[in-house]
Parts: sequence; structure tokens; C-alpha cells
Amino acid sequence: MAEKYCRQNRGLSDKMEEECGVFGIYATDGKCDVANLTYLGLHALQHRGQESAGICVNDDGKLRVHKDMGLVTNIFNEDILTDLTGEITIGHVRYSTTGSSLLTNAQPLLVNSSKGDLSLAHNGNLVNSAEIRHNLESQGSIFHSTLDTEVIAHLVARSFKDDVIEAITHSLQQIKGAFSLVAMTEESLIAARDPYGFRPLSLGRKGDTYIIASETCAFDIIGAEFIRDIEPGEMIVINEDGIESLHYTERKPHTFCVFEFIYFARPDSNIGGQNVHLARREMGKQLAREMDVDADLVIPVPSSGIPSALGFSEESGIPYQQGILRNKYVGRTFIQPTQEIRDLKVRLKLNPIKEIIKDKKVILIDDSIVRGTTSKQIIRRVRSIGAKEVHMAISSPPVAYPCYYGMDTSRRKELIAAQKDIEGICQHIGADSLHYLSQEGLLDSINTNGYGFCTACFDGEYQIEIGTDKFALEK
Amino acid sequence: MAEKYCRQNRGLSDKMEEECGVFGIYATDGKCDVANLTYLGLHALQHRGQESAGICVNDDGKLRVHKDMGLVTNIFNEDILTDLTGEITIGHVRYSTTGSSLLTNAQPLLVNSSKGDLSLAHNGNLVNSAEIRHNLESQGSIFHSTLDTEVIAHLVARSFKDDVIEAITHSLQQIKGAFSLVAMTEESLIAARDPYGFRPLSLGRKGDTYIIASETCAFDIIGAEFIRDIEPGEMIVINEDGIESLHYTERKPHTFCVFEFIYFARPDSNIGGQNVHLARREMGKQLAREMDVDADLVIPVPSSGIPSALGFSEESGIPYQQGILRNKYVGRTFIQPTQEIRDLKVRLKLNPIKEIIKDKKVILIDDSIVRGTTSKQIIRRVRSIGAKEVHMAISSPPVAYPCYYGMDTSRRKELIAAQKDIEGICQHIGADSLHYLSQEGLLDSINTNGYGFCTACFDGEYQIEIGTDKFALEK
Amino acid sequence: MAEKYCRQNRGLSDKMEEECGVFGIYATDGKCDVANLTYLGLHALQHRGQESAGICVNDDGKLRVHKDMGLVTNIFNEDILTDLTGEITIGHVRYSTTGSSLLTNAQPLLVNSSKGDLSLAHNGNLVNSAEIRHNLESQGSIFHSTLDTEVIAHLVARSFKDDVIEAITHSLQQIKGAFSLVAMTEESLIAARDPYGFRPLSLGRKGDTYIIASETCAFDIIGAEFIRDIEPGEMIVINEDGIESLHYTERKPHTFCVFEFIYFARPDSNIGGQNVHLARREMGKQLAREMDVDADLVIPVPSSGIPSALGFSEESGIPYQQGILRNKYVGRTFIQPTQEIRDLKVRLKLNPIKEIIKDKKVILIDDSIVRGTTSKQIIRRVRSIGAKEVHMAISSPPVAYPCYYGMDTSRRKELIAAQKDIEGICQHIGADSLHYLSQEGLLDSINTNGYGFCTACFDGEYQIEIGTDKFALEK
Amino acid sequence: MAEKYCRQNRGLSDKMEEECGVFGIYATDGKCDVANLTYLGLHALQHRGQESAGICVNDDGKLRVHKDMGLVTNIFNEDILTDLTGEITIGHVRYSTTGSSLLTNAQPLLVNSSKGDLSLAHNGNLVNSAEIRHNLESQGSIFHSTLDTEVIAHLVARSFKDDVIEAITHSLQQIKGAFSLVAMTEESLIAARDPYGFRPLSLGRKGDTYIIASETCAFDIIGAEFIRDIEPGEMIVINEDGIESLHYTERKPHTFCVFEFIYFARPDSNIGGQNVHLARREMGKQLAREMDVDADLVIPVPSSGIPSALGFSEESGIPYQQGILRNKYVGRTFIQPTQEIRDLKVRLKLNPIKEIIKDKKVILIDDSIVRGTTSKQIIRRVRSIGAKEVHMAISSPPVAYPCYYGMDTSRRKELIAAQKDIEGICQHIGADSLHYLSQEGLLDSINTNGYGFCTACFDGEYQIEIGTDKFALEK
Repeated sequence: MAEKYCRQNRGLSDKMEEECGVFGIYATDGKCDVANLTYLGLHALQHRGQESAGICVNDDGKLRVHKDMGLVTNIFNEDILTDLTGEITIGHVRYSTTGSSLLTNAQPLLVNSSKGDLSLAHNGNLVNSAEIRHNLESQGSIFHSTLDTEVIAHLVARSFKDDVIEAITHSLQQIKGAFSLVAMTEESLIAARDPYGFRPLSLGRKGDTYIIASETCAFDIIGAEFIRDIEPGEMIVINEDGIESLHYTERKPHTFCVFEFIYFARPDSNIGGQNVHLARREMGKQLAREMDVDADLVIPVPSSGIPSALGFSEESGIPYQQGILRNKYVGRTFIQPTQEIRDLKVRLKLNPIKEIIKDKKVILIDDSIVRGTTSKQIIRRVRSIGAKEVHMAISSPPVAYPCYYGMDTSRRKELIAAQKDIEGICQHIGADSLHYLSQEGLLDSINTNGYGFCTACFDGEYQIEIGTDKFALEK
Repeated sequence: MAEKYCRQNRGLSDKMEEECGVFGIYATDGKCDVANLTYLGLHALQHRGQESAGICVNDDGKLRVHKDMGLVTNIFNEDILTDLTGEITIGHVRYSTTGSSLLTNAQPLLVNSSKGDLSLAHNGNLVNSAEIRHNLESQGSIFHSTLDTEVIAHLVARSFKDDVIEAITHSLQQIKGAFSLVAMTEESLIAARDPYGFRPLSLGRKGDTYIIASETCAFDIIGAEFIRDIEPGEMIVINEDGIESLHYTERKPHTFCVFEFIYFARPDSNIGGQNVHLARREMGKQLAREMDVDADLVIPVPSSGIPSALGFSEESGIPYQQGILRNKYVGRTFIQPTQEIRDLKVRLKLNPIKEIIKDKKVILIDDSIVRGTTSKQIIRRVRSIGAKEVHMAISSPPVAYPCYYGMDTSRRKELIAAQKDIEGICQHIGADSLHYLSQEGLLDSINTNGYGFCTACFDGEYQIEIGTDKFALEK
Repeated sequence: MAEKYCRQNRGLSDKMEEECGVFGIYATDGKCDVANLTYLGLHALQHRGQESAGICVNDDGKLRVHKDMGLVTNIFNEDILTDLTGEITIGHVRYSTTGSSLLTNAQPLLVNSSKGDLSLAHNGNLVNSAEIRHNLESQGSIFHSTLDTEVIAHLVARSFKDDVIEAITHSLQQIKGAFSLVAMTEESLIAARDPYGFRPLSLGRKGDTYIIASETCAFDIIGAEFIRDIEPGEMIVINEDGIESLHYTERKPHTFCVFEFIYFARPDSNIGGQNVHLARREMGKQLAREMDVDADLVIPVPSSGIPSALGFSEESGIPYQQGILRNKYVGRTFIQPTQEIRDLKVRLKLNPIKEIIKDKKVILIDDSIVRGTTSKQIIRRVRSIGAKEVHMAISSPPVAYPCYYGMDTSRRKELIAAQKDIEGICQHIGADSLHYLSQEGLLDSINTNGYGFCTACFDGEYQIEIGTDKFALEK
Repeated sequence: MAEKYCRQNRGLSDKMEEECGVFGIYATDGKCDVANLTYLGLHALQHRGQESAGICVNDDGKLRVHKDMGLVTNIFNEDILTDLTGEITIGHVRYSTTGSSLLTNAQPLLVNSSKGDLSLAHNGNLVNSAEIRHNLESQGSIFHSTLDTEVIAHLVARSFKDDVIEAITHSLQQIKGAFSLVAMTEESLIAARDPYGFRPLSLGRKGDTYIIASETCAFDIIGAEFIRDIEPGEMIVINEDGIESLHYTERKPHTFCVFEFIYFARPDSNIGGQNVHLARREMGKQLAREMDVDADLVIPVPSSGIPSALGFSEESGIPYQQGILRNKYVGRTFIQPTQEIRDLKVRLKLNPIKEIIKDKKVILIDDSIVRGTTSKQIIRRVRSIGAKEVHMAISSPPVAYPCYYGMDTSRRKELIAAQKDIEGICQHIGADSLHYLSQEGLLDSINTNGYGFCTACFDGEYQIEIGTDKFALEK
């Protein structure tokens, strides 16, 4: 079971950046439930962002938004939800990649324009937003935030198309990058996915109510059924005329972010018909097939290494043990130990169990290595309690190239695989051996209905050129 | 890996009550670190109580306490910890068993008496506190809280012994029940365990600094080494004269709470030389040996069912699958769904994965059943996604008798096994079959150095008669 | 002494709306003090708005704003102020006239545009903002707030003038209404007043540091000296080239809001060389000259009736008594008395003293009557403790016309003098007689250097036609 | 009008210490209103203490208390008040005289004892509490706070009298000092006043409901009528048997704190039949009769100097002017001006008006001088704006002796009149002349029904010897 959620303690994070989550509802019957359902949906998507969250409703035709910093359960309470009435909602959970976490950057964004009230929320990263922003400002637009979403809002407002749906279409044609977008006007719910389909976005249904969500786990919590994924380059418009599908651009080669399968998505979600947990288990099996190590135990680095470790054990026959405990109460820690407590941050989160590990040759399984810090610390602790050998096995290839469609720029320099070869990384983290799943093996582990994948972080082959946007702003 | 921690969402809880946690330090060198180390120790013990927490220090001979409602990480920050200087500390995390969670009931308790300042914190439940309280009140004592700890403080203040250590000894001789106590005066750290040794309490060391903790996992986080358990009926006094061990009473038959092994303790703790996780795994193996069910999959109810499910799978050969996902962001939920969303509370926490479970005969493994509510809901959900058969297996015997040494009185009536036989429970929760580990099998799974166990919740054999204290107050 | 400040308890308010307050600094020497001085200036202007407050600084050329809901002393603390470094600041205190008090409406407003960062704060109400807004939206601008300030920001961003100062000039030429504006770019502090000079705005100096403030009392608190009022239609630009005065439009007939003298301004401020407290005292004298009532005592309705009551007593010879006490701790009250406590809201604030009032013929003095509710309640209470006669005297003419330059639209309907004649009002409030100061007498009481006054709320003669902006938005 | 309330900004205070306030209700009919009425009563008594407040109710026979740090309006809201049901309540507002403002010192104090639940709240200072405390501790009592109230609670619990009323009587006989006490058991409301009657305490009635309050202004707010003062040495018990008056001790010479008339009490309260505001006005008249100064204006130091300044002007014929404005928004200020702003703290609160004061000979009137700091600063500011002469007149005699019945010990050293003669004080504060009201003149100004007064702070004649309690603890 992958548990990558609680990210309050930033310094501990040694993972790829997470992604935001979006949600939307169009209810044809009654009014009272949409905020509650959106709240539940965002709750299920909480793992995609813990910095801020928000819900927009159309209350008697007037759009209203409630958003704040923090977790979904802390931002909303019964009074607030009761007050958010309407038939249409969009919601958002945000993961911020920088220190400047500001309320002005929380979503959904609500703006007034000549095309009426418009609210937007999106998950992803535009690669030409700085360029568009510059153009818009030179035409007299003013910006209140550093959000890509505000760029899209301006394009809609500026569009020569009078109809807001046409204006959105027109705007989507101008932006480049990875995005899954939900938007709402007073009468319509809109959902759109970029032409390459980088980020997940699915359509569901509960009775006569349509639901849009980043992941299918958000359907489960409210008892909705999955209908289908929104297609790359597709825009869905739902209003009193029913549901309409538009293809606002020609479809590009599908390049779905493979890291959604490796780490981002919740294991109980399905993408392209493939359950995420089972894909991770399969990656573990494949990793076992590709490796040849003699060991006594397979031990996951919890929580994200668990499914692949289970698969690895099953395939290799090496016994699986949960030899490292993960403390659920990580939280924010203020301690600056004046007395030396080595590896404090990893101690707060992970504790290896001596009785299991002592005098054993162990294979530690994790989903990926970004900076290598956590790996180094946990290996040191595992050795200190008496492991005979410590082998590290990773259920994905080395992350050697930055992601321009979602990763925080400041972290791009920190990729250890961009600086060292496998031997060098192995030495750095102090393992007896280090093994990565091959890219081919990774892709073979995922059984989707003909999805193509973005593997740029492994092989540097970027579908969208990113050179034009040197002044990239915060997501 | 057992994960029983996050209990904010009370209604969801279908577990035995948790226990409080205590911690203490006596540092011979320097002053500055004790609050930080205590903070880390309480952090490691957070699973034993999430309602309130506190730390007391001797600051230039004057005792000072900081305590509040909430989690350790929320109550303390760098400023507060920096301000808590001294060489001696005690700390406490509290689990409240009732709705009346009040700051006045937070610990450590700090009192002024003729014997000087005294601070106390304890884990457990006295069975004669109402009686002693009544006697003390009739002699003119007044009480500010409903804490057993305050009863002990009064006994110390009232003691005819002038010396505070003697007075504590004298007081401990008068109380009956389960308790692990830490206390401090301006010069001494005291730790004591009841004569039966119901609750864990261990002594550790880090250089010249002595540490007392409810569980050994608190030693690991600060890099201290385990020395030995405090013995039943033993009191340790640490001050500038060194460390002294007193036996304040004759030792009674050891009756350690077996539920510490089943559920309460953190899996990475050791008790009596037995690692808790490994004991749970062994319970799962034993359960497999005692059962005879034909199934396709073994699936744990996360998190507490995981170790025994792993053991069960290993022993039975039935494949293990993490077919139910646990959401880490449970938190407090305010939703009163006006629209029917059945089993909402279990949905918020647990999500079974259809792709794994559909058309399968599954054995669900959990550590215990208290009220049966969660079991009923999760079985209903597992069936709804297409399980062919659902068998429930519990890695402990039926909880048919209330615990008077730690359980909230109001919950004593809710024990389903006190009202129904196994067949009746099976019907109630809607399983195809229901299996409990035998008491003998349970005890065989735990390999301690000659520990005896309290199994009163299974067999009703209470070591301490409890009839005299009918008006038992809140722990 | 007029005390109109604490307005948290909205329902109690029976006064004209208050106005916002603005403040700005350009420091030529050092950097460290500007945030502190701005904090003190806003503190002195707190009576002009208690809903929200904010400060913007140029920190190494980059504009940064800190703003929040609440009082100045609650929003800022030492850490925040220490962090707000720069040589230029603007600040704002806001009085909201509607229930929708939102953080997005707090000022200063900070925007990014092609002309660089720009921050604005203003006091007043535009009468053509809805029209301009409509035009801007139809050209593709989007709005995040309902602030007039955002309209001005858009005009600046849209201006064909490349230079930001020219663009501001150009923008001010397009807006109509009452406004006193402060703005800042990375290098310049700008202050401007509307062509009619509705709202006060003054220039001061402390050493080499220039200061702009809504009222002169803000100069006193920081030890600055008053230089002169900003003139109607004047814009001041202060930067490293020194201070420059521009007249961005032809000057209109001066129509200064006479209610600043009656109620809005702090009594220790001077406007046009006239001290406000002395003007109010003179209004009381003039009221005495215009009235002919036989009474035993003159009693002010505190706090705003005090200066005119003192003047009235001095002129009439009727003894002055503070026969009504005002409770300083009004605050927000949550009580919904289930048991009848009549006039609860006035009781919480005002308490007449029986020993002074019993068996006396009293004249109550207040500065104005808006809805009549407070007058009615206080007269009822004064009668209930035994007053023989209760005469009401108001130190201004009847407010019979709404103010379109600052009053909340929803309150425009509530003007009792718009619906009843003096006899009707007298009956409504239950007085034995009711007297208003004549408009001529009011204007004679104020001795400014040739100021003209807006008296539209008394006579309906609006200098700026307001018909074009029927969809007026919130200030 | 005396305004001594807002004391958040401690450094600014240059006044005698304030006193706490107590309130109590016994309702014979219905249940629902008592918490609301108590809330309103405490609101009216807020000027007697702003540090903390609390209400205790008997909810179905069980006592429950809600208390917190802060103002009454911040501590209670509708939910909390709705939850506080019962027929009997006591309430308290606390003024802390030390920096160690702790929640454990908030009142009412609720304790469990053999005599049942008991809640107490008191206003005053015991002079033998340290002695009693020492005795109690040596008999085994433990203390949680530094409150005198806890001492009384212990005496009650320890009393050999079984009946709680008798035990309270017995306890009151043992304590010495100034106190006005309210207490409640499950069935009774108790009120008692010390034998000298230092502090005010009155009995009121609203229908069949009895009310106890420190000041009569608390009756006005809830529409209750004043019945009579509780007499010195009297204890009132109200329960279902009706209202009973006991004299628990022989009556001592009445020595009511004269500072209640000078400063502490609210001007709209009556004490001994004398309205406080009118007494203060009379003090001003008497001061005028005793002085011979040629001046142009009489100016109060607001707010406490206003009533006596009005009386002074009336008697002397010298015109009264409110030449110093008091800012209502004092609050807590964090500013440490790096740039010299002289007299910042007085600037934040008081602003003299140049247009009134310039070139005038002024008499400033205040109620008392404690440390002299504010007087010095305001005189400096008044001179700086051009006053020709500044004479200071005080409507009470010099405070030359500490008050042991209510003043913070740390402030006892700061009394300027204990260190300097009038000439020396005059020089220190920088006045042209300084005048105090004579003690005889003070007492002549107050017209009570045969009250005697404690004037120890003026003449050092303490009714209760205070030497025995050298270790006096915080009130």
C-alpha cells in the first residue's frame, strides 16, 4: 500500500513532487448535497495536495468560493458546507512546490468578466505561461497571483469569442503543457484535458449527477460509478442541455505521466482500466525477475514501497517482512537538537525493527530515489541494528531528468541520478548493491488500454519543447 | 504493521480503548536538551494518546509544566521547548475515554504541598480511587479533576511520612489497580509500576542520562539503549545520589495486559524481550493453524490486521493481498449526508479494491472485534464489489468482559461478544464464517521471559477484585 | 469628545457610514522605520475603518503587502513589521458597508502589470465604476474583487501611456466620484484627491520623510508636522527626484463632505485649518442660539454628542451633565435573550444615571439621527428612570438624502428623515420635542479657509450626477 | 466619565490596581436564562477585570464551569451560553496584578469535596492567606493555584462542620482581609462580605430571581432592581427555603475602600446610596474650593479626570474644555520604535489639541497619581504644543502608602508619593503647580448612609494589621 500523503514535514520529502487534484459536480436534481459530495471527493483526493483546498458553487446563479490553507477537514465544517448551496461545484486540492504558499494562490480561482462569472481549477503546469502572461500584461491585463490558472482566466476574458464555452476552447488552444482542468460558469460544468493527456481526469455518475475527478477513488467514496476517462484534447461541457464532448484540438500522441502509476495516484484508483496497486505489485514482480540477489528478507520502505515489495517477494520467493515501522504522527517538527541525534528526521518517521533485521541480508524496496537523502539515512539505520547486507531495489528507472510539467524548479538540481551513475548513487546511499527496474520492465507492468506514457524523467524525451519558457513561474 | 493511531474520528473507532503514555528523563550533564528529548519521546508514544500532552521540567529547582489539548506536534514549538529548561522532566500523552475531554484532566499534574512541588503522570486505572477519594474528601481534601493521578498526589501530601520519597512509597501501598507512574520533585525522578505489572514501563539510558518510557520505541527515537523493564511492584528513584530500586510492596502474580501485544503497543516496541510486530505475526500463523477455510486471498483490515494477515498467509499458503486501502487523512468529519451515502464513516477510512477482490473468496483479518460496527460495514462493502465469500478471522479471542483497568465505562456495554455467541456475531457482521484465535494459541504466540498475562477481557478472571469501586470515575 | 469608533456590534450602529483611511510614507533616509510609522499612522486612523487593514512596502524594489481582517493592533505584530522593510509604504484601514466582509476586499491592492508592480489604496466611492468596469470587462479584463480600487488598477494597466505616472493621471481623468488615493510603484509614492475634494487628504513631513494621511491626527502620533492639504484635483508624486505636484484635471467647485466635521473625523484632527472638536463645540453653541427650550440639564448621547453638548451648555447656560454612561467594552454580543430584556443593545452600550436624570427636564444632544433606533431606545430608557421631559437636539440638519459617495446602498432606504417630517420623527423616537441645527447654522460653525461643502445628504444637491451608475457596487 | 478599563497595554497604566468583579443568580422559575443574565452582568462588570472571566452553573445538580483568559465577549458565545443551563450561577471577571496571568488562576474555582461540589469566586485580598496555606499544606492539602479562593475552598473542605453552609461560615471566620465572595453548591447561592466591608457587594432582584453583584450597574443591564448592599460581616444564603441572612462574625468598623469612589467603580453605579459619578463631580467642586489658581481652562485627563474636571469648572467658573483626546483603540502595541518617537505610549492613547491649548494657562485634572509617568508625559506634550502654564490638580490625596488589600506587591515600591513630597512630585512631572484634594475634602464629597472608609493608602492607618503575612502571594 503506497502512502505518500503526509507531506507537512517538507525536509523529509525525498519523493517526486505531487500533483494537485480537481473535482466537479453537475447535479440535475435537488441542490443540497453538492458541497458535501465535493468535500468527500476532495477528501479522497487529499493525497494530491495538502497545502490548500477550495470549493466553488453556483448559489442561485452567483458563483461563490470558499478556500483556505490546510487540509480539507480543517478548512470546511458543517456550517460552511451547509452554506455552499447550488447544483454545480468545482473543487481543488493544491500541492505547492515552493515555500511561498500563499492564500492568493489557492484554487478554485473565481473571476468576474464580461463573459460572466467564471471559476477555474487545474492540475498541471503550463510551459508557455510566462510568455502568455507577458503578452497579456502588455495588452493591459493585471495579475493578482502566480497561478497558471489565472493565465487561462485572462485568455478566456480576452477571447474574441462571445460565448464563454467557445472562449474557453479558444484559450485552451493557446496554452501548452500538462493540465487537467475543471471550470464552471453559472450554468455549466466544464472539464478538459491537455492534448497529450499528461494528467488523469475521469468522468463518473451517481444517478443523474455527473462527476469529474482526478482519480477514480473519489467516485468510490461517494458511491458514484466510473464512466470513462476524459480523452486527451477533449473538453466536456455539462449543462441543462445535457453532456457534450468537444475536441478542441487535434489529439497528440498520448503521453500519460508514468509517475502517476509509480507514486502519485492512490493505489485504489484505476487509470486506463489498470488498478494502480496491482500495477505496483507487478512492478515488484518484474523487478525480481530482472534482479539476481541472494537475500534473507524483502523489506519495503513504507508506505510507498509496500506493493512492489509484496510483488517482489511473491516472484522471488524471498520472505516479505515489514521490518521498518512508519510512524503515523509525523507532523511538523520544530526540534533543532542541540545534542547530536543523528538522522533525526528519518527517525521521526521510520523505525527499523532490530529483532527482524539483525544478522539478515535484506533487500529494501522503494518506488524511486530523488535526492537519495532518505535512502541514505534508512540504510544507515538498518545497518546500525545489525543487518548483514543491505541491497536497495527501486521499482522504477533512475530519475535523471527534471519534469517540466509539474516539478518544482528548485528541486530539479537535486536529482541524484542526474549527477551520478548507479554505482555512484549506490556508494552515496551506502548500499551493498542498488537495482533499478528497467524502463521496458516498468511499461510492461502497466496494462492500460493503449496508453502512451511520458517517460521524460527517465530518458529526457520531452513531448513538448520547454525551451521557450525560461521565466517559468511557480505552478 | 499495526496502525491504530489516529482516533480523532471517534465514531469510527471499533477498538479496545488505548492507553496513555508516560516518559521521564534525569540528565546528569548539561541542561538544555531534556525538553527536546522528552518531546521526541512523547512523539514516539503518540499512538498511546492523542487527546492531550504535557511536559514538566525542574527549572532552577522550580517545577513548571506546559500542557494542552491536541497532538504533541501541535502543543509544543521551538519557543516553548527552548523555554522548558532543567535536568529532570516527565511527560505524558493522554487518551481520553469519554467525551468530556477537559484541559483540567491533562497531565502531568503539578501540585504544591508541604512536601514541596510534586508533579505526576500516570498510565492506567485505579480500581479503588473512588473509595480513596471518598476518604480523602471526608478528611477535607478537595479535588479539581477526575484524574486518578490527583488521588495519588493527595495521598502523598497527606502521608505522615515527611520524606517525599517515603510518602510516595506509602501512597503506592494504598492504591489498587493498573498503573505505570512517573513523578518528579525538584531533585528526583521517580518511576513505579503496579504490583501486577499491568502496563509496560521501561528504563533506558543515553550516556549518563536515564530515561523512563512506556514503550521501548521511545528509546529508539532518541538513540537511547534499553536497560530493563521496571519490575512489577518496583519503584525507581533517580537523583544526584544515583539510581535506587525499591520494592514498595510484595510482588503479585504478573498479569501483563495481553492487549498491549494484540493492539495497544507500537509494533516496533519490545516487551519482555518480545518484539510486538513479530508476536502479532505469530498470532496470525497460529490463527491459520487453528482454522480451516478454503479461500483465494488473505486480506488485512488495515492497519491493525496487517501483521497477523502476513503471518496467516505465510502459514496457510493463501496469497496475501492489500485489497483494502486505508486513507491516511481521516481527521474529523462534519458531514451529515442529506443524501444517502451508506457506510460513510468506513468509506472515509477504508476502500476495498474491486480489481483485487471481485469474484474471490476472501479471508479478512483483524486484531479484534469490539462493537462490530466497522466489521459489518467493511464486509458489506467488500461484498458490494463482488467478493464471492467473506470470512472474518480475528487474531485474538472474543472480548466478552469489560476491562476495569483501562476501558471507558460507557463502552463496557457495547461489547458485542458479551451479548452474542460467535454464531450471533457472525450473523451480525454478515460474514460467511467467523473465526477467533484461541486464548491458548494467543499466549503461545508471545514469547516473553516468564511474563504472566491478564486475560480478564476474554475469560473474566480479574486479578484485582473490582466490586468495591462501583462508582469508578473517569481514568 | 466624539467617539464613534467601535463598530463591531453592527446592529447598534445608528450613524452615517464611516470612511476608510489612507496613509503613505516616502523616506529618504534609512529603511527600518517605515512599517512602524505606517502602523502608528493607521492606528491613529483606526476610527475610519475597523474591518480590515494592510500595509504595502517596497522591499528591495519588490512590492509586498500584508493585510488581514480586523484591527490594526491585531493584524500586525513585531515580527511582521520587522519583516516589512523598505523606503516607501502605503497603508489602509477599511470600513465595510456590507455584510460581505471579505479578505479579497482588503486593501492595499497589489497587482502585477506591464507597467510593473503597482499598489493602491483609496478612500471614497466612485459613481461611474460600474460603467467603467463594464467597459473593461468587455475588453477582456477580469476582476477578483468588488473594489473601486481594482477598477483604477485596471485603468492604469490598460492606459496607452507607457509611463506609470502618466498612466495614473490618465486613469484619474476617467473616474468620477469621491476619492482620496495613495499609490506606490517601486520608486514612487503617489497621492491624489478627486476634483471636488470630497474626502480629506493631507501632506506632512518628519525630517526628510514625507507623509500622506487622511487626517492630521496621524501626523501627531508620529511627531510629524502638517504641511498642507492635498488640493482637489491635485496629484503629488514623490520619488528620488523630489516632490512634484500635478493638476491632473481642472479644479471643480470644492464640495468637502460636511459630515467629516459633524461625525467622521477625529476631534483632534484639523481640516482646512479648523480643529474638528472646536467646530463641533461651535455647532452646539449655534444650536442653542437657534432653539428655545426650557430645561434643567443638557446631556450628551456619548460619545459623539459630547462636544456639541458642551457648546450648547456654554451658550444656553443650562447645566451640562454626563448623565448617560457609555460602556467601553461593547464588543460583539451573542445574546438572544429568551427572557425579555427590552432595549438590550442600547443597554449594553449606554446606561442613563437615575440620580442625575430623575425628575429633570433634559435636553439630549446627539450629532445626527440616521435610522432613529438608538434615539428611540435611549429616550425610552431616560424616561423609564424618571425624566420629567426629554427634548432631543441634533447638531446637524435632518439627513434626508442618501450619500452616493460613501454610504452603503442598503442603508439608503433606512433614513428616517427621508420618510418623515420632523414632527413624525419626534413622535417616532418619543421625544417631547425635536430640534435640528439649520444648514446655515451648521456651515457658519465651521471656519475653514474658503472650503465649499457637499451638503447633498441634507438638501439633495449632488455635485456629481449619480444617475449613470445604477448598478453601483460595494465600495 | 471615568474610563479606566482597557488595561491590555500594561506599561501605560499609571493607576491604582483594579479589583475583580463577582456576580451570582438564583432563579426560582425556569432554567434557560441564567447564563445569559450572568454573561450580561459580567459584561457590565468588565471594567473590574479584563484578564479572565468565568461562569459556573448547576446543571441538573452538577456544577459546571466555563472560564478562559480574555474579555467576556471573547470567552462566551451563543453555543457556550446555551450549553450552560441551570437555576444557579456565579460569575467572575479577574484583574491580575502580576505578569503571571495563568488560566489556572481564572475563577470561579470549582472543587469536589466531601461536602459536595462547591464553586467560589471572590474579589479582594486576604492578608493571612500565606499563613493559612502553610498550615493547610502541613496538614496534607495540595494547591493547584496561587488564588486566595483556593485557600477558602480548602478551609471549607477541612471544616469539622458537616453542613456546607456552616463550613463556609466557619471558614470565613478564619480568614482576614478584604473580600466579597460569591459561592454556590448544587442547591444554594451564597454571598458574603468581609467584616470591614472593604469591597462593594449588592443584592438585587428581577421578578422572583435574586441577583448578587459587585456593583449596581450590573443590575441595570439586566433590568433588575437594587434591594440593598450586603452588610459587612454578613452572609446571604439563597435556596429553595428562601433567602436567609447570617452574621458570621461581629461587625467591625466599616472601612469601605474609598478608591472605589475615586477610581474603581463604574460612574453609573451607586454605593451606599451615593452615585459614583456625582461623588466624583463633587470631588472636583471641593478641589476647586481648596485651590487658588488663575487659569484660562480646566482640562480633564480622559477618561478618569472628566467628572471632577466638570465639577471643578462649575465651582471655579473657569471654562471646561476637552482639550485632550483619548483614542479608543489603544490595544496591545508591539512597536519598538527604532527612530525616536518620544512619549510613544502616551501618544497612542492621548492627544492634546493645539488649537485649544496654545497660549493658555491650563489646569489638568486627574483622579490620582500613582507612578507619575503618564502625568509627566502628558504635561510634556501639553507644553510642547504651546501651553503657557500647566497646573496639575488631583481629585484625591497623595497615595503614599501601599494597599495590602488589593494592590500588586511589585507596584508598592513605585508609589511616587511614598518617595517625594508634593513639591518633589511637581518637579518630577514638570508642572507649574500641583494640587491634591484634602482627605477631609474627599470624604465630605461622598454622601453615603454612614459608611466608614479605608484611607490607608493616604494615611497609612490599616484596619487589619498586615505584618503577619510576609509571604503574601498573588491575589
